[in-house]
Amino acid sequence: MKVLIIGAAGMIGGKLADRLARDGALAGAPIASLLLYDLHRARAPHGAQIPVDISTGDLAGAGEAHRLIGWAPDVVFHLAAIVSGEAEQDFDKGYRSNLDGTRSLLEAMRAASRRPRLVFASSIAVFGAPFPEAIGDEFFTTPLTSYGTQKRICELLISDYSRKGFLDGISLRLPTICVRPGEPNKAASGFFSNIMREPLAGKEAVLPVSEAVMHWHASPRTAVGFLLHAAGLELDAVGPRRAITMPGIAVTVGEQIAALRRIAGDKAVARIKREPDPFLEGIVAGWPRKFAPKRALQLGFTPDQSFEAILRIHIEDELGGRIV
Amino acid sequence: MKVLIIGAAGMIGGKLADRLARDGALAGAPIASLLLYDLHRARAPHGAQIPVDISTGDLAGAGEAHRLIGWAPDVVFHLAAIVSGEAEQDFDKGYRSNLDGTRSLLEAMRAASRRPRLVFASSIAVFGAPFPEAIGDEFFTTPLTSYGTQKRICELLISDYSRKGFLDGISLRLPTICVRPGEPNKAASGFFSNIMREPLAGKEAVLPVSEAVMHWHASPRTAVGFLLHAAGLELDAVGPRRAITMPGIAVTVGEQIAALRRIAGDKAVARIKREPDPFLEGIVAGWPRKFAPKRALQLGFTPDQSFEAILRIHIEDELGGRIV
Repeated sequence: MKVLIIGAAGMIGGKLADRLARDGALAGAPIASLLLYDLHRARAPHGAQIPVDISTGDLAGAGEAHRLIGWAPDVVFHLAAIVSGEAEQDFDKGYRSNLDGTRSLLEAMRAASRRPRLVFASSIAVFGAPFPEAIGDEFFTTPLTSYGTQKRICELLISDYSRKGFLDGISLRLPTICVRPGEPNKAASGFFSNIMREPLAGKEAVLPVSEAVMHWHASPRTAVGFLLHAAGLELDAVGPRRAITMPGIAVTVGEQIAALRRIAGDKAVARIKREPDPFLEGIVAGWPRKFAPKRALQLGFTPDQSFEAILRIHIEDELGGRIV
Repeated sequence: MKVLIIGAAGMIGGKLADRLARDGALAGAPIASLLLYDLHRARAPHGAQIPVDISTGDLAGAGEAHRLIGWAPDVVFHLAAIVSGEAEQDFDKGYRSNLDGTRSLLEAMRAASRRPRLVFASSIAVFGAPFPEAIGDEFFTTPLTSYGTQKRICELLISDYSRKGFLDGISLRLPTICVRPGEPNKAASGFFSNIMREPLAGKEAVLPVSEAVMHWHASPRTAVGFLLHAAGLELDAVGPRRAITMPGIAVTVGEQIAALRRIAGDKAVARIKREPDPFLEGIVAGWPRKFAPKRALQLGFTPDQSFEAILRIHIEDELGGRIV
């Protein structure tokens, strides 16, 4: 089996590559080779047991998708995207990367007639407020960003190309990834991770919203688990509704902080500085809080067990088991 | 006010053009000129009180959308589409016309920076079975055809371009149009109209499905009314959810036939020949039956009063008030 990861230089892409390179297998079949593709050069995976190639390029560029699909992958993970804020600021760039790039990929698969499995990383940004208390699987998608619009359009295309038999695709609406490793970033959702990661590392973090804000989270390890599970699903049995909301953990910021206190004590919590930002609070008010992802659970996608479990995964995977 | 109709050679486009040309006004403002555009040459409207230009071309062709928007329309009705069956048979043609053509139009509007009103004819084909008994405004869209997929993508684009302020758009999910005038056509949904129109004209018609089949209908006159109402709506008050299911009449085929009997008697009903077609019955089983279009009713879209009223509109508008 040949496996391609598009967007392999991203955080989830890197963790997925590590896992595949280490396992040397996917969905019960050995991986003959792994191709990592991104605009930026992906790092080599840790502990690779299989041949790994690394390639750079712009998926939306002329001939690029055909070149990639010419490598004849059996499974393609498509994780590449211009992020929400950038797609909002640069309308053309967002549509070019997030819509046209994906469409090129689908067209290349159609032209190759090999019907590969495609696992597409979609997002809960396909939803837009107002919402019911818990968003069900049949709730409509009314995105409030260009990014969410682009993700939803890709979901629709992947369902249609799958229905026509050009490929065998599935779109996973990933929760917000928490705790996101690395430096604090400027994404509007960054604070959900910042207020956990920084205190666990002995550093201060800013909380710009109220503790009552509820949101929907999955750990990086669990998100990688969703992608792997999707690669092995029998999709003919799934039917034509190929966009699936992944199960997350719905917690308030207050509950996040309580979990941090149980794991790392008051001194960690004391590193969270409250600096209310009404503008950001307004943005966050439009985001989904909680889902009822029955379909994903029926299909065997396994969520994190609790927000505390999410923190423990971060400590194991990123901090070598140690907290400050 | 300058008004452009794209898809003016179609049945609804022609009736809309007649109405605008006769009224000489739209949403309370006088129409300075009307431009009719289609791949095929549109006929001149009946009883025009205003200047009318007729132009032919392919909306998806290079420079074509810019040329049209260069005419500086204040209101654009976009009704042009490759129909469902053709979009299913010719994948490239469907995406080119129904998606790329519309996207060119949106891009031309964005480039012109005049923020025209755009009224887009969408379809209940954005929905795919299984359904609840009556489909609510917040039910998700899982199209089962490429046509439905393309319509849904255009809805999403129009909402996003509207949110960004590039245009001021609304998508109307029209019911199946019944009674459709003209010759019997090969559309899978054609029989809903055929079994009414042909008997009213003294001719035989084939009923290929069971009388228990329920479907969602609007008369051509009422559909034109939806388009006119949408052109004058205060859309800022409508908010960002710009795709709206239009109100129709949900009746079974048996109820259609009972209405025909009340209006035209047993001799008309006797012209309906039952020739069950299991393949077609299978297709129809995937179609929406009934909606609960609360939002459209709140926004003042006025449906037909009954299926009998739909028949009376056909007799008035197409048969000069006479039945055989």
